[in-house]
Amino acid sequence: MEESFTGAVDALADFVLGGGKRIRPTFAWWGWRAAGGDPESPEAAAVLTAVSSLELIQACALVHDDLMDASETRRGMPTVHVRFAAQHRAEDWLGAPERFGLAAAVLIGDVALAWADDMLFAAGLPTDALQRLSLPWRDMRTEMLAGQYLDVLTQARGDSSPDAALRIDRLKTAAYTVERPLHMGAAIGSGSPALVDGLRAFGRDIGVAFQLRDDLLGVFGDPAVTGKPAGDDLREGKRTLLVALGMQRGADVLHEALGRPDLDAATVDEARAQLRDVGAVDAVERRITELTASALSALHAAPVAEPAAERLAELAVSATKRTR
Amino acid sequence: MEESFTGAVDALADFVLGGGKRIRPTFAWWGWRAAGGDPESPEAAAVLTAVSSLELIQACALVHDDLMDASETRRGMPTVHVRFAAQHRAEDWLGAPERFGLAAAVLIGDVALAWADDMLFAAGLPTDALQRLSLPWRDMRTEMLAGQYLDVLTQARGDSSPDAALRIDRLKTAAYTVERPLHMGAAIGSGSPALVDGLRAFGRDIGVAFQLRDDLLGVFGDPAVTGKPAGDDLREGKRTLLVALGMQRGADVLHEALGRPDLDAATVDEARAQLRDVGAVDAVERRITELTASALSALHAAPVAEPAAERLAELAVSATKRTR
Repeated sequence: MEESFTGAVDALADFVLGGGKRIRPTFAWWGWRAAGGDPESPEAAAVLTAVSSLELIQACALVHDDLMDASETRRGMPTVHVRFAAQHRAEDWLGAPERFGLAAAVLIGDVALAWADDMLFAAGLPTDALQRLSLPWRDMRTEMLAGQYLDVLTQARGDSSPDAALRIDRLKTAAYTVERPLHMGAAIGSGSPALVDGLRAFGRDIGVAFQLRDDLLGVFGDPAVTGKPAGDDLREGKRTLLVALGMQRGADVLHEALGRPDLDAATVDEARAQLRDVGAVDAVERRITELTASALSALHAAPVAEPAAERLAELAVSATKRTR
Repeated sequence: MEESFTGAVDALADFVLGGGKRIRPTFAWWGWRAAGGDPESPEAAAVLTAVSSLELIQACALVHDDLMDASETRRGMPTVHVRFAAQHRAEDWLGAPERFGLAAAVLIGDVALAWADDMLFAAGLPTDALQRLSLPWRDMRTEMLAGQYLDVLTQARGDSSPDAALRIDRLKTAAYTVERPLHMGAAIGSGSPALVDGLRAFGRDIGVAFQLRDDLLGVFGDPAVTGKPAGDDLREGKRTLLVALGMQRGADVLHEALGRPDLDAATVDEARAQLRDVGAVDAVERRITELTASALSALHAAPVAEPAAERLAELAVSATKRTR
């Protein structure tokens, strides 16, 4: 490989290996197990490689997302565009450091997206499994990008309705993070239509519930546990369902709190109190409970092989009751 | 599809259908014909779809490149990031128009890259052809991105050596534009190793020669024919082999001309005169002649089926003698 490119590839490797919950490969793996995939079989290694390619898709999503949001840090480290701008500055190179950081982040995200495909294709799966995978793989990537675009567009339009928040959750988290990974796993394992439909229904609901828990943690989470500053979602101005319901129900402090980089602790506390008082927190908690229940009944109705049924039920609960 | 996403997809369709020389699919098609591919055979339609997916890779490359270079126009139209920033401004949306334009361009390029894979995979090629294709497809995408990164890095480092210019030409144009498309076509057609090696050697040399002609046109081209302002490459500060040789040989006006957005016609004329006087133009023309000759002898030595041999020789000449 061209030697000068290794700096970019190292940054991608650091990013992918530097953390993350590996939630997408986990759901894909258990989708395969749900279809009867045997972890002791010779094909298990190929399946593991195939589902791990989802981490490269996620690397593209996060590196490009951080650039679009102009975020400074991710997982406690400088974001990719910030890291390369800093390198440019340290080396005293020509041109604007920010422009170099932008170019590096665009290209490193592109490399991750292209390599995800390469990794999937070269995982060693039989060609009929690759053929079955192609549909959920295709839809997963398009849904992820459509969700990102919808998110950006919704922010620009100032649409803070609960409906808009839920549409983004369905695409950006539910489809991309849970439903399609499960679909992919089941497709590798040649799962029946009943299994695929059941897992997808489960994934759609758990995916939204997972995001709603994330929204609550983004405002009420303990910084010592989440690793993010208190009320970080408010500071970033995220239009989550929690915030949308709060605004709809008259939590007026949100108008001044949202998107203020210098948001102080007192205003965060006031926003929290109002979100509780107007019932937005209860409404979101109720929605999580309902979605978890409907997800679990879809799971139980589907012909899921053990121990996947039990493990997916545990994942559903841990994803929606977690504290970080 | 999510309705709000159609604006982004429309922009991508406009971009892909709005112009371009279709040079990569053309070389890939003739690579297939070189391996004996029959345009009257039932598989020809699948091959045509597969090679056309290269236009989506190119759409990603250009949309992201325009964003990284902050270019205002492409093919006489506003670039994607400019178009979306203008929409944001016209609709009086929230936030900075430039930030919205950036996000749209990042995501539209990503969609093009993901859909290129989807298009290739769904083209209807037999699985053994897809398998053979996977290696040149993989390398083509990585070489394109590595070439872009090397280009950005070289500019930042202020490396204006002829060697650096040639390394970028080899990755960014030769490998990505000619060598790998030919390789892909030959792989679809199950070409022999001798054919693949011969086509690749031909493609490497023609690809560099093609880029060197582009470099000459970027400084000496007739704006009425190229569609670009006179001396546009100087204004953009491109470190082409032509410019690198000029600087090495003492064409001093380049130091003040390069990268000046307000470059006037008199300075362009002066730079042209110096590039001629120091022999940089002759050196580049000589290199084009040599590369074309070595490419044609590699082509003649390879077991290329007719009429592909004749057609590829014509393409080689038209790519290196063109006026736009």
